[in-house]
Amino acid sequence: MKNNINIGIAGLGTVGGGVVKIINQNAEALYKKSGKRFVIRAVSAKNRNQNRGFTLDNNVIWYDNPLSMAQDSEIDMIVELIGGSDGVAYELCEYSIKHGKDFVTANKALIAKHGINLAKQAEEMGVAIAFEAAVAGGIPIIKTIKEGLVANNIKNLAGIINGTCNYILTTMEDSGRNFDDVLKEAQKLGYAEADPSFDVDGIDTAHKLCILSSLAFTSPVDFSSVYIEGIRDIAIQDICYAADFGYKIKLLGIASIQGPSITQNVYPCLVPINHPLAKVSGVNNAIFIDANPLGKLTLEGPGAGEGATASAVVADIIDLVSGRRTFTFGVPVANLAMKLTSKITNHSGEYYLRVTVLDETGILAGISEILSNEGISVESMVQKPVKKGENANIVVITHNCNERSIQNAVEKIKKIKGVVDKPKVLRIM
Amino acid sequence: MKNNINIGIAGLGTVGGGVVKIINQNAEALYKKSGKRFVIRAVSAKNRNQNRGFTLDNNVIWYDNPLSMAQDSEIDMIVELIGGSDGVAYELCEYSIKHGKDFVTANKALIAKHGINLAKQAEEMGVAIAFEAAVAGGIPIIKTIKEGLVANNIKNLAGIINGTCNYILTTMEDSGRNFDDVLKEAQKLGYAEADPSFDVDGIDTAHKLCILSSLAFTSPVDFSSVYIEGIRDIAIQDICYAADFGYKIKLLGIASIQGPSITQNVYPCLVPINHPLAKVSGVNNAIFIDANPLGKLTLEGPGAGEGATASAVVADIIDLVSGRRTFTFGVPVANLAMKLTSKITNHSGEYYLRVTVLDETGILAGISEILSNEGISVESMVQKPVKKGENANIVVITHNCNERSIQNAVEKIKKIKGVVDKPKVLRIM
Repeated sequence: MKNNINIGIAGLGTVGGGVVKIINQNAEALYKKSGKRFVIRAVSAKNRNQNRGFTLDNNVIWYDNPLSMAQDSEIDMIVELIGGSDGVAYELCEYSIKHGKDFVTANKALIAKHGINLAKQAEEMGVAIAFEAAVAGGIPIIKTIKEGLVANNIKNLAGIINGTCNYILTTMEDSGRNFDDVLKEAQKLGYAEADPSFDVDGIDTAHKLCILSSLAFTSPVDFSSVYIEGIRDIAIQDICYAADFGYKIKLLGIASIQGPSITQNVYPCLVPINHPLAKVSGVNNAIFIDANPLGKLTLEGPGAGEGATASAVVADIIDLVSGRRTFTFGVPVANLAMKLTSKITNHSGEYYLRVTVLDETGILAGISEILSNEGISVESMVQKPVKKGENANIVVITHNCNERSIQNAVEKIKKIKGVVDKPKVLRIM
Repeated sequence: MKNNINIGIAGLGTVGGGVVKIINQNAEALYKKSGKRFVIRAVSAKNRNQNRGFTLDNNVIWYDNPLSMAQDSEIDMIVELIGGSDGVAYELCEYSIKHGKDFVTANKALIAKHGINLAKQAEEMGVAIAFEAAVAGGIPIIKTIKEGLVANNIKNLAGIINGTCNYILTTMEDSGRNFDDVLKEAQKLGYAEADPSFDVDGIDTAHKLCILSSLAFTSPVDFSSVYIEGIRDIAIQDICYAADFGYKIKLLGIASIQGPSITQNVYPCLVPINHPLAKVSGVNNAIFIDANPLGKLTLEGPGAGEGATASAVVADIIDLVSGRRTFTFGVPVANLAMKLTSKITNHSGEYYLRVTVLDETGILAGISEILSNEGISVESMVQKPVKKGENANIVVITHNCNERSIQNAVEKIKKIKGVVDKPKVLRIM
């Protein structure tokens, strides 16, 4: 490869700006490390005249249509920071591959939805798709799984991979405020979008999880089979009771392999306080991996933001120009082995159950009987007052049991006279 | 490169055995990921007839002299797992390079002491030296610094990179027992050597620290300038008092850059309980990195043991045969910029000071006066009884001050009438 690397950047938002800054400000260091000079040859973004807080050289070409960038024969590599699983981001990826250009992206939705199709095309054309920035921002988790743990069989992984949700949950915990209140604050601070559903309903976590899962288990990336629950229903009471029992509540993406099946679940989960993921606070991300023969590895760091995400994008760029290449999902697409998906109804584990009841006698006995009839054994149970002289919360931690049993029990418990609302069920890690 | 990769392994101890097992048991997965078949073509170890818990194919060549392995033209790559900074490990590295073979090692002492010299030779011959397993076992910290954080300026890093010391300190903390007692237990459990000084006196941590420091600051690896204190003098009382003030005591390797100077220090240190390194328990290792623009990243995992270390060795092997190569210290040796070393006497920070005193009046006033005269401002101070009616401990947490001031104060305080023993000083992270 030649000495100058001409880069085309599509999307000049926060991350795009971060990439421009690193390439301009760290030019000498990057040259020393890679032997290459990086030139931002072209950019494409919606608004030419917006003040973005950085300047581009005068000789940078501005393409109104990012697809034209992919056709520019002077450009060696396309960096896509537009976002969205379809539309122009998708087209740009296909165009870049077709024109023989490596493609670097931070776009988890694109990889989660079209990763296999795009990986096939990239393989045929002998180019690379790199997406370190797509999962957990600045944490080099893609590289760690694909390269660092290449010798391992990964048994399971669990990640806090949405900073918005972790911010909301840890702020609820620290301040004792409820979800809606903290969400509003997060929106003001720029940690949550005006429409927060992508984050708080677990979709973003699911996009990232299915990418990690594919890499960990060398199976085709499969977003559609991810079971997803978000954090809207987490009450401050649940966080407090969980703490009493020695747990924190975290939104986790969990992927594990059992024989021929893969589990890919996103749900708020009780994490034992001594687990490395329990200690991850604020907008930080973290991924916990249990691998054989390595053992348990945890990576924690900033999962979003200009600097962290741009750091990952530029790492991909340097890897590619330095010849440090991998297959899109760690192995050739033909070697990705389709695996069965284990449904959430097959889940088994410990559960947290909160039943709000009127302050009447006999309800506790009724709940105990239903649990017993479903074969659910109780590890701990407490009853706590909610409103003075009115309602009470009965909180149960179960021993290992089946998802079906717990869901059956919940259906029966909610019909008990004196039970207020549907009981709250949370899984325990 | 050809389809079969012939490997020569020197040293068949715990890690060597782990490498053999991975290569044999994960052959299919490694083939799918790399497109290569890995063949253990030759081995060299002291005793041919020892039962090592694994079998080698009959056609594996046994070399009594590992140097002969480096001359075997059928061998593509040498894996050195003998250990020791000099002697046969060093010779084997030079021989391998001379014979145009990539060299993979877990040998921190070798890299810490002779890294630059060997890196030069490797560059001249166009071969690679890879040593992911040399620091923090299975944690991919070398790859993370060299590749994942390539776009960053690292400001400082701190690591728990000796599992023996972390085991001893956390066991002291959990059990309330003293150093000697826990060391003996660690020796029984195989976590500490019969001669533990390499670990508990901080040498091993210093070897690893200077490697990380070189990679982080692209400066020549320089073991000789590392300031080293071990953990022999940590009393259980210090761990308890530290806990009272909200700290854990950890043996850290700390490297930071300030302008033209590098600090490389190994010492037991008070770490605030909310810091990611405070939570690392048992034999685990962890490295905390503060980088710009990334932010703060922590990696935690197993720092030693057969599986973890072998995982890192095999990751290096796969990287090299897949063309994922880096310069030994991240940049060409000529680009490693010599930096000044900041001496420990230039250190400034907060300090923990414990003074054991007779239960007499006036001593506290004497200590306070000395601290004040040295310009040391006190953040907290407590006095606690040690033995009933006899001695007391005065424990001080200072605000930011200079190492010289604190050492001057200690010299003066120990001369106060009624002060028993030399005051204990520990730095705060």
